Amino acid sequence: MTTNTQDAIVLLGDSLTEFGFGEGGFAAKLANAYVRKLDVINRGFSGYNTDWILPVFEQCFPTQEQQQQQRLPTIRLLTIWLGANDAALPPSPQHVPLSRYKANLARLIRALRSPDSPRYAPHTRILLLTPPPADGPRWAQFLAEQTRGMEPPEWAKKLAAEVGWEAVQRPDRSVEVSGKYAAAAREVGAEEGVAVVDVWTALWEAAGKDEKGLGDLLVDGLHLSEKGYKIVYDGIVSTIAEKYPEYHFDNLQTVFATYEPFFENPGDYLNIAKKRSAFKD
Amino acid sequence: MTTNTQDAIVLLGDSLTEFGFGEGGFAAKLANAYVRKLDVINRGFSGYNTDWILPVFEQCFPTQEQQQQQRLPTIRLLTIWLGANDAALPPSPQHVPLSRYKANLARLIRALRSPDSPRYAPHTRILLLTPPPADGPRWAQFLAEQTRGMEPPEWAKKLAAEVGWEAVQRPDRSVEVSGKYAAAAREVGAEEGVAVVDVWTALWEAAGKDEKGLGDLLVDGLHLSEKGYKIVYDGIVSTIAEKYPEYHFDNLQTVFATYEPFFENPGDYLNIAKKRSAFKD
Repeated sequence: MTTNTQDAIVLLGDSLTEFGFGEGGFAAKLANAYVRKLDVINRGFSGYNTDWILPVFEQCFPTQEQQQQQRLPTIRLLTIWLGANDAALPPSPQHVPLSRYKANLARLIRALRSPDSPRYAPHTRILLLTPPPADGPRWAQFLAEQTRGMEPPEWAKKLAAEVGWEAVQRPDRSVEVSGKYAAAAREVGAEEGVAVVDVWTALWEAAGKDEKGLGDLLVDGLHLSEKGYKIVYDGIVSTIAEKYPEYHFDNLQTVFATYEPFFENPGDYLNIAKKRSAFKD
Repeated sequence: MTTNTQDAIVLLGDSLTEFGFGEGGFAAKLANAYVRKLDVINRGFSGYNTDWILPVFEQCFPTQEQQQQQRLPTIRLLTIWLGANDAALPPSPQHVPLSRYKANLARLIRALRSPDSPRYAPHTRILLLTPPPADGPRWAQFLAEQTRGMEPPEWAKKLAAEVGWEAVQRPDRSVEVSGKYAAAAREVGAEEGVAVVDVWTALWEAAGKDEKGLGDLLVDGLHLSEKGYKIVYDGIVSTIAEKYPEYHFDNLQTVFATYEPFFENPGDYLNIAKKRSAFKD
């Protein structure tokens, strides 16, 4: 009922997911492609790393018991797109070491795929996205411009007292380090047997494997432009077509009839208007 | 849980709503503005009139009993945007006479606002949108171009056997008739005491009260361009600000904490990550 009329696609991630409802964003494109078939639910949390996502995930994703008792919509597709913040270098409070990043991703995946997990979700197909290549100097410059003349936040002052301002303001992202986190995500995908959308490689290739080429794929050195999001969206859709074709929008039907049957038999509209499954028989 | 982590905005309507997740569409803009606060659920059904929407509405909107038993998300805002198809002239199968259009709109509103209705929803704020001005000749030309050289559908052949092809192919929309349906929607809004977003008047004024001026507000004589949707979105947001300010996105907080508290106290992340209400205390 209500929002439970249709099954769902859930997008779990950081700001790259949260901003995905912006113009040309991948979330908006998915919502449009799946309209009347699956609802697209954005669970993107700007600034979060995999450590901070884990407790949020447990509050967002139902246990099997809750799923049944509350007749919740089935999550058909789940994108997990994390690592862009984990890859921030120390002393950034966002930094998560590579080994824990891998363990956290595996924990998210196993929570849904282990039959003995309380959140076991056998109908949920997972797409693991790698973080994009980051342009560290450009991101640092963007942050400096955004905060010029402003009082630094308390956390930055506290950190600077420990490690000095130079360390706090140094670029904390890079193509190289984001590439290591992307490789780690690919490894987790292979180990856990889930589909990977390799955003890092797709964007790096679109950039001609040159940091300068990232200019029109990223708006600020970290977040994606419409052109960047288009590549992400295309990667998601082609991965669904290849790995989970039964969940591709072209293979689903609208949950309520299209207008043609009403035009054919206007007198029979009460029958025609009966809800059906998005899955064709 | 799941998709029930956040309360919702539901958009009920026809193709103008369904296409609202397209680039620059009003649904995509709302989803972006309310991200992490309220989920935007698109219940737009291309080609539907108010007769056909009524049974769909009953399957999409929970009874109070379902709402409580299933702990469904509260629908905080509901847009009702219908009439563009009701205003199709006879012999169109979409035509709904003006008096029944008004009765149908009132039935939708009362289903949610009458304390004795099974779907009584006291926390749902309704925005009633008027249909846009239609450019009949342009829409007829668009349809003719789209279907040129194609076998007519069965419903058109059946209808033509009764009334002749000339009547079936004649422009069935107009500025004038859509204006009557818009006036009727305004009357229903006033009678039922719900906020009206007068899309018809806003677009007609933006067009300089001249059919030619509709050219860049409509893409095909019936559906809205990005420029048209921008006017609709602005109308919705300013109406929320005026009538239901407690539900304006600027007056809500994110359901999960922003990143700053995590930066301040990374060690306390389990507490910081606890879900809270979108309504500030």
